[in-house]
Amino acid sequence: MAKPDKTAINPTRVQDYPEWYQEVIKAAELAENSPVRGCMVIKPWGCATWENIRTHLDRMFKETGHVNAYFPLFIPLSFLQKEADHVQGFAKECAVVTHHRLEAGPDGALVPAGELEEPLVVRPTSETIIGAMFAKWIESYRDLPVLVNQWANVVRWELRTRLFLRTAEFLWQEGHTAHETRDEAWAETLKILEIYRRFAEDYLAIPVLTGEKTAAERFPGADTTFCIEAMMQDRKALQAGTSHFLGQNFAKASEILFTARDQSRQHAWTTSWGVSTRLIGGLVMAHADDDGMVMPPRIAPSHVVILPIIRADADRAAILAYCESLAAELRAQTYDGRPVEVVFDTRDDNAGEKSWRWIKKGIPVRVEVGPRDMASGSVFVGRRDRGPREKYGQKREEFVAGIGALLGEMQAGLLAKARAFRDANTRPVDTYDEFTAFFTPASREKPEIHGGFALSHWCGSPECEAKVNDALSVTIRCIPTGHEDSGPGACIVCGAPSRGRVVFAKAY
Amino acid sequence: MAKPDKTAINPTRVQDYPEWYQEVIKAAELAENSPVRGCMVIKPWGCATWENIRTHLDRMFKETGHVNAYFPLFIPLSFLQKEADHVQGFAKECAVVTHHRLEAGPDGALVPAGELEEPLVVRPTSETIIGAMFAKWIESYRDLPVLVNQWANVVRWELRTRLFLRTAEFLWQEGHTAHETRDEAWAETLKILEIYRRFAEDYLAIPVLTGEKTAAERFPGADTTFCIEAMMQDRKALQAGTSHFLGQNFAKASEILFTARDQSRQHAWTTSWGVSTRLIGGLVMAHADDDGMVMPPRIAPSHVVILPIIRADADRAAILAYCESLAAELRAQTYDGRPVEVVFDTRDDNAGEKSWRWIKKGIPVRVEVGPRDMASGSVFVGRRDRGPREKYGQKREEFVAGIGALLGEMQAGLLAKARAFRDANTRPVDTYDEFTAFFTPASREKPEIHGGFALSHWCGSPECEAKVNDALSVTIRCIPTGHEDSGPGACIVCGAPSRGRVVFAKAY
Repeated sequence: MAKPDKTAINPTRVQDYPEWYQEVIKAAELAENSPVRGCMVIKPWGCATWENIRTHLDRMFKETGHVNAYFPLFIPLSFLQKEADHVQGFAKECAVVTHHRLEAGPDGALVPAGELEEPLVVRPTSETIIGAMFAKWIESYRDLPVLVNQWANVVRWELRTRLFLRTAEFLWQEGHTAHETRDEAWAETLKILEIYRRFAEDYLAIPVLTGEKTAAERFPGADTTFCIEAMMQDRKALQAGTSHFLGQNFAKASEILFTARDQSRQHAWTTSWGVSTRLIGGLVMAHADDDGMVMPPRIAPSHVVILPIIRADADRAAILAYCESLAAELRAQTYDGRPVEVVFDTRDDNAGEKSWRWIKKGIPVRVEVGPRDMASGSVFVGRRDRGPREKYGQKREEFVAGIGALLGEMQAGLLAKARAFRDANTRPVDTYDEFTAFFTPASREKPEIHGGFALSHWCGSPECEAKVNDALSVTIRCIPTGHEDSGPGACIVCGAPSRGRVVFAKAY
Repeated sequence: MAKPDKTAINPTRVQDYPEWYQEVIKAAELAENSPVRGCMVIKPWGCATWENIRTHLDRMFKETGHVNAYFPLFIPLSFLQKEADHVQGFAKECAVVTHHRLEAGPDGALVPAGELEEPLVVRPTSETIIGAMFAKWIESYRDLPVLVNQWANVVRWELRTRLFLRTAEFLWQEGHTAHETRDEAWAETLKILEIYRRFAEDYLAIPVLTGEKTAAERFPGADTTFCIEAMMQDRKALQAGTSHFLGQNFAKASEILFTARDQSRQHAWTTSWGVSTRLIGGLVMAHADDDGMVMPPRIAPSHVVILPIIRADADRAAILAYCESLAAELRAQTYDGRPVEVVFDTRDDNAGEKSWRWIKKGIPVRVEVGPRDMASGSVFVGRRDRGPREKYGQKREEFVAGIGALLGEMQAGLLAKARAFRDANTRPVDTYDEFTAFFTPASREKPEIHGGFALSHWCGSPECEAKVNDALSVTIRCIPTGHEDSGPGACIVCGAPSRGRVVFAKAY
């Protein structure tokens, strides 16, 4: 249990941000490393968070006409090679299946046997295998659009991994669509980008910038990649979702042809788009504090924990009954169109330890009920968006009737706080000296503390982009939607003309 | 479009049952083979069916205290080898990852590179990797029970595959629990078996026998395997779910130890249990007919399709508006605690073709609305559990108000029909001659037509079990729950004493 002058998470954000991140995930029981290199175990609290993300996004996809399907885990090597840029982009991080059984080797130990004629790659993404199916399914313009989404695991053999942010295996959704015209595919790409933006802001309470990636940051094989970019509490950017306009590149690679209205045979226009369990890493880095996780109510696995405070055995039955009926009353309330989710923690642990456990897990509201609260028909409430020791008594009926509004207030508060932080750390930067200073840590001890998002001019050349990356480890996060509104200027690196500002930042 | 004297599926069940099965899946657009050996693509209608299975089972698991988590796709070879019987059981069908990147070979083509120090097996099941995590998580009896479930994909390299029933990759849930005592683990195993039984009967409308597997059919590494067994329309058995009491076998292999109440260090008692996308194959073989799929309403992706019949362009707007408001009224009704799911099929295809498409997909109710129906405020209704040409007119309000009851009646009817079929093809068999005749096809042309489930005595010896299998391809499906109630007798093979009848059948 943390003492009044201590924090539950050590080190704190200011002391060591990367280490703080790992400690929050551990303390909140969201996930942990597994004995399999780079693969994580998503623990029940993290899994329930992902299930909520899945439920809400799935509804948004279905409301816009998408349907779910499921495609093979394995991709034949020859399929992956169909699109040259694509295979180039993933070749360095592929898990390759080469054998289909095990047999006893010379020393009796089992070794791989039954070599496959063609190696299979564990899907890093599914454009090529889904493209092969689209080619079978689509014959005429009447079959279009095809609007498919898949919830699946994918594998990218990352060398330096970090829980949720970068793991060899992760869970995600990948949407794949095929259209009759370029305009329709382009509109789909932007429609999904807008769904991602709404979801990040309205559900995760994470404000995001939307925009287009530069060629250097584009999805391998895409014509155009759009993204949502969020600012974490260390002022770094997190790419939180991408939506790709694939042009006819993959349609040509996979021969997705259709008979057009004029009877000609044409290649379809395709898109793909995805968000992953990385979003949970974003939730941690956007909202958690030095006492642990802070869950936005709309995505929290549970909204309220009831903690009975039993000091004498004689009180036990009465307090538990009081809590039971309180739980039932709360569950009859709704928040965000669903019943309020209540945990009633009856374990016989020390009350303080129990309370801290839930603070660290980030449950939005804690309700303590002791003999005095019971006697006065009241509850003692702790909000996770306030300090852990800042609690208040409230009449039971008032608390129950107000729970939906309280959760709504907290959800809005988290978004407003994150937005204020982002805005306070985003500003126009017009000279390279200022730019360098902006991205130079305040001190050697705190290398993670730097300026944030710099809105600067860029001439559009890959050379200037690479120069900034080499010198400062800063990348162009996106060419923001409506970037020409910021007016013309001179490239921060070479001084050549620019039509609008782009977003520079250090990034995960 | 099928002619009045034809069936929509050819061949029919009687003509060629295995081929009929494939054709139903194709016609219902449930799944299809992919270009990846043994791996299927689950199409949107099949995927939505699986999502419904998942939603209902997931709720039943959560109501009984289980939580979801997610564990790595890969299992290090050394982990799989920890339990000797276990690895023996899966060694012949493992997809093995041996490399972690691709690079250009001598001829420029990409080849696997970056050989792993230890090969990784794509999980065929997760006892060993989850066991390793349980060993970390469990310290004391206070940490028990651990009740975890995972929804995941698994891979078993089957040589002869068949859509849904036997595929190299399939989707499933696998529950894994650890307990303080043998009794608690045993009770958990049976609790899950009962959940599976209820789910199969109440949701899938498939009656099942529950019972214990013989040693020959046991899960590799388990102490006892329980199962639910269903009868398909060709009278063969389908194992539809299994629940394993693992004793301390895996706890010893993975060193899942805890400090007991008496301070001694003890091995936990574990269970595991699973059902898979195989259930969808079971749905097809239990309910589909010679016109296609028949979906039980509680598991159907949609309940009602509205088919506007537009014969003149002048009617179009009015009919579409009538259908729209009908759809809205239906969606405001509930069935099984959720809103009635309605598809409004407005595509400009031929009305007959559209109707047949939905018959083949097995949607429970079709509603046709033409100009005369509209004029008289009525609808024309087709029930999927009746013949495709057997339709009736009904007042619109009556139909809408009765939709929940109609779906309930259809759900109950499907279960009753399947139960009657199963019971009609299950009987005691007491001599080996009769037994041989029971399992000998009626004719060479219809090798799939044979008796069904034979309730016969068995002495308990693996030799007698193997003899029957060798001679007739008949296996013991289970030693049914309460099998001693059938009274003692003599083994059907050797005449030695038996304490009760067991269930013999041909099986998938």
